[in-house]
Amino acid sequence: METVLIKDIYRNMEKYLDKEIEVSGWVRTVRASKKFGFIELNDGTFFKNLQIVFEEDLDNFKEISKLPVSTAIKVKGILVESPSNKQPCEVKATNITIEAESDSDYPLQKKRHTFEFLRTIAHLRPRSNTFSAVFRIRSLAAYAIHKFFQERGFVYVHTPIITSSDCEGAGEMFRVSTLDLGKLPLDKDRKIDFSKDFFGKEANLTVSGQLNVEAYALAFRKVYTFGPTFRAENSNTPRHASEFWMIEPEIAFADLKDNMELAEDMLKYVISYVLENAPEEMEFFNRFIDKGLLDRLNNVVESDFETITYTEAIDILKKAKKDFEYPVEWGNDLQTEHERYITEEVLKKPVFVTDYPKDIKAFYMRLNDDDKTVSAMDLLVPGVGEIIGGSQREERYDVLERRMDEMGLDKEEYWWYLELRKYGGVKHSGYGLGFERAIMYLTGMKNIRDVIPYPRTPKSVEF
Amino acid sequence: METVLIKDIYRNMEKYLDKEIEVSGWVRTVRASKKFGFIELNDGTFFKNLQIVFEEDLDNFKEISKLPVSTAIKVKGILVESPSNKQPCEVKATNITIEAESDSDYPLQKKRHTFEFLRTIAHLRPRSNTFSAVFRIRSLAAYAIHKFFQERGFVYVHTPIITSSDCEGAGEMFRVSTLDLGKLPLDKDRKIDFSKDFFGKEANLTVSGQLNVEAYALAFRKVYTFGPTFRAENSNTPRHASEFWMIEPEIAFADLKDNMELAEDMLKYVISYVLENAPEEMEFFNRFIDKGLLDRLNNVVESDFETITYTEAIDILKKAKKDFEYPVEWGNDLQTEHERYITEEVLKKPVFVTDYPKDIKAFYMRLNDDDKTVSAMDLLVPGVGEIIGGSQREERYDVLERRMDEMGLDKEEYWWYLELRKYGGVKHSGYGLGFERAIMYLTGMKNIRDVIPYPRTPKSVEF
Repeated sequence: METVLIKDIYRNMEKYLDKEIEVSGWVRTVRASKKFGFIELNDGTFFKNLQIVFEEDLDNFKEISKLPVSTAIKVKGILVESPSNKQPCEVKATNITIEAESDSDYPLQKKRHTFEFLRTIAHLRPRSNTFSAVFRIRSLAAYAIHKFFQERGFVYVHTPIITSSDCEGAGEMFRVSTLDLGKLPLDKDRKIDFSKDFFGKEANLTVSGQLNVEAYALAFRKVYTFGPTFRAENSNTPRHASEFWMIEPEIAFADLKDNMELAEDMLKYVISYVLENAPEEMEFFNRFIDKGLLDRLNNVVESDFETITYTEAIDILKKAKKDFEYPVEWGNDLQTEHERYITEEVLKKPVFVTDYPKDIKAFYMRLNDDDKTVSAMDLLVPGVGEIIGGSQREERYDVLERRMDEMGLDKEEYWWYLELRKYGGVKHSGYGLGFERAIMYLTGMKNIRDVIPYPRTPKSVEF
Repeated sequence: METVLIKDIYRNMEKYLDKEIEVSGWVRTVRASKKFGFIELNDGTFFKNLQIVFEEDLDNFKEISKLPVSTAIKVKGILVESPSNKQPCEVKATNITIEAESDSDYPLQKKRHTFEFLRTIAHLRPRSNTFSAVFRIRSLAAYAIHKFFQERGFVYVHTPIITSSDCEGAGEMFRVSTLDLGKLPLDKDRKIDFSKDFFGKEANLTVSGQLNVEAYALAFRKVYTFGPTFRAENSNTPRHASEFWMIEPEIAFADLKDNMELAEDMLKYVISYVLENAPEEMEFFNRFIDKGLLDRLNNVVESDFETITYTEAIDILKKAKKDFEYPVEWGNDLQTEHERYITEEVLKKPVFVTDYPKDIKAFYMRLNDDDKTVSAMDLLVPGVGEIIGGSQREERYDVLERRMDEMGLDKEEYWWYLELRKYGGVKHSGYGLGFERAIMYLTGMKNIRDVIPYPRTPKSVEF
């Protein structure tokens, strides 16, 4: 007999009702009296458990009555409508076999655990309700992103993880090396001789695939990356991880407006996809993790996003009857408190803030005619603040060169990036979405460590 | 007027025929006489170019006649059926504007270039026919893999890139560190004090996500990884890269047979998807890169894969009237020459070889009852040899522990992996597919450097 998956039973109950079926999975709970008992069985395919009813006529009734949590079992029985209204159906077991035992010291017993504790058992926490929901949403959201771009003809580009450049000079990087630290090779000036290292020069983990993917946008017109990126910053906050995934689309023959349209469409698509494909999980988050989540997400899907300039944003903030911790001054970057005030209290919907001062943005962003601002955009959303950052790229060779000089970058290292501007380097734009930030936004989870299967943060590289 | 993409024109010609349209893209070639000229325009969305016909009544006829290759232009005109049978349609231009100039020293002129040369311009090579085909196939194949697994309810798991364990003790690893090499911290024994390093201990780049994803298979039943992996081996061969992507599905309540079925279904799905969605590119590979490619791939899709044991494979090889470079002996690993002989000359189709000697396989593979072999499988395909390697995992705590002892592994480091066997660690299986090997197989490309956008190999980390 073929094993039926619990997801299929819930999604297609009629097909199996009153038939003999076989299911298998892990025991979440057992309650038993002398004559009968109930098992909540989870088989990994669905957020909800399937109730198994067993009676004393079972050969191994006593053993089954005392099954430790997380035992793997196989159940044969009839799927029937449940007399209780707690679940639509249940299995009246005719046979239950143990596939794999579980020790009674299983740490994920029914009682509530703190997220901090669950991080110490990262290998088991996906078996809990919260984390099974988080990591299914993570998977669905990742797929939604691929689906969105692929259906629109974008080419997925695997930009390199190990790199010899440091993109924007932004952020600390991890060194990648095979040098023997016990006997480091030195050059004639007694400095470390990286020509002896694996790659023949210093190499680091990437902080962004953007520069690399721009080259592909100028070949394929519409491209995106989706891969891991790294920051060696010693920030132990709920929003920072040393290793995280990023999505970076890049489009040619496209200006900042096209870029914003793409970002808006993508975000709405991903939210809709997740709401449609994981309603049980999203309902769970709305009830237990972040009340109001569903309203907020539905509001985003239904809104037309607003657009204001950075200068307008500063005006709004200056007029605000509110004490901000950080000063509001043209030329300063917006802080999360500012961003949330604008998107949550003033506009009450997602808003693109555009045209930031050039001095607080990266060298590759296109300089506006005012010579003071660049063609950048940040997308702010209620509940989070900035979730996407992007720009039109500087396509003018001479302007780009000047900006690199101003920022003290080594132009020789960027020879190929500059060269893209020499050979049909048409206007192009792109943005970056931090994948974990997006998952936090979709689930209401408050700590980035709780949306990454095995998080890496300062002093933490377990599992 | 909205810009029409060349892909849409080719796929849906009727819609645009005899209408005024606007297209934009990069000039691949220009040929012009005194009265008229032709541009081959590529806009990045499609493998083929669109022919633009322009005549002397154009304002900027002279300028357009001399456009350097790779200039970005915008064209308005009428789409008409082409009088030539070289292309189905062409645009009679009424207006051509230059969007971005190209210098005349553009290195990708029409003449043929060696793949070696093109590697030195990795930022431009996706604009060539071969590499636009390779990297579109790469993107489509990646998506096909996600689609295959997601449609079957698999959960995509991002296993960590930075890790403190070394999976199978297999292969050299890259160290990830932020220690200042100029003043390394030493402990009281004058050894490097990694407790001062970013993660508080030694950390490396992952060689496989398998151990991590097993934990997720025991929660979600069907899972897969798809991410970058690394080998710090100093092998400069056409088949080895230091950074490559790997797909590793893992299924619970599943034995080796289920595992092989999954691998067969997946491979056929990916091949079919690529053949269907990139017929022009595949035709190109079949004509110019690897004659017989399409026959070989179609043969794979239509075959039922064979299964033989390692012991049977050794028998076949011993009986072979063929001089192998490497000796054939029970207990030795199969070499590519052996694998290709079996799949190409004997069975003439893909074949799973199962039940290898335990001593040549990893510690986590399930020990067979003979105590000599393990429940492993390699999939061999004509033209390549091994493309997938997998196994049923050792789910018995005591056997796993014994195998780890035999292989000298530090059990404390694997505490959580062992613990999975204590709590409902039901039988489970999985395999790994090297993504680049698969792309080589799909395209006929012979060097792994030519299927990775920016390849990383010993002494090479450019771009």
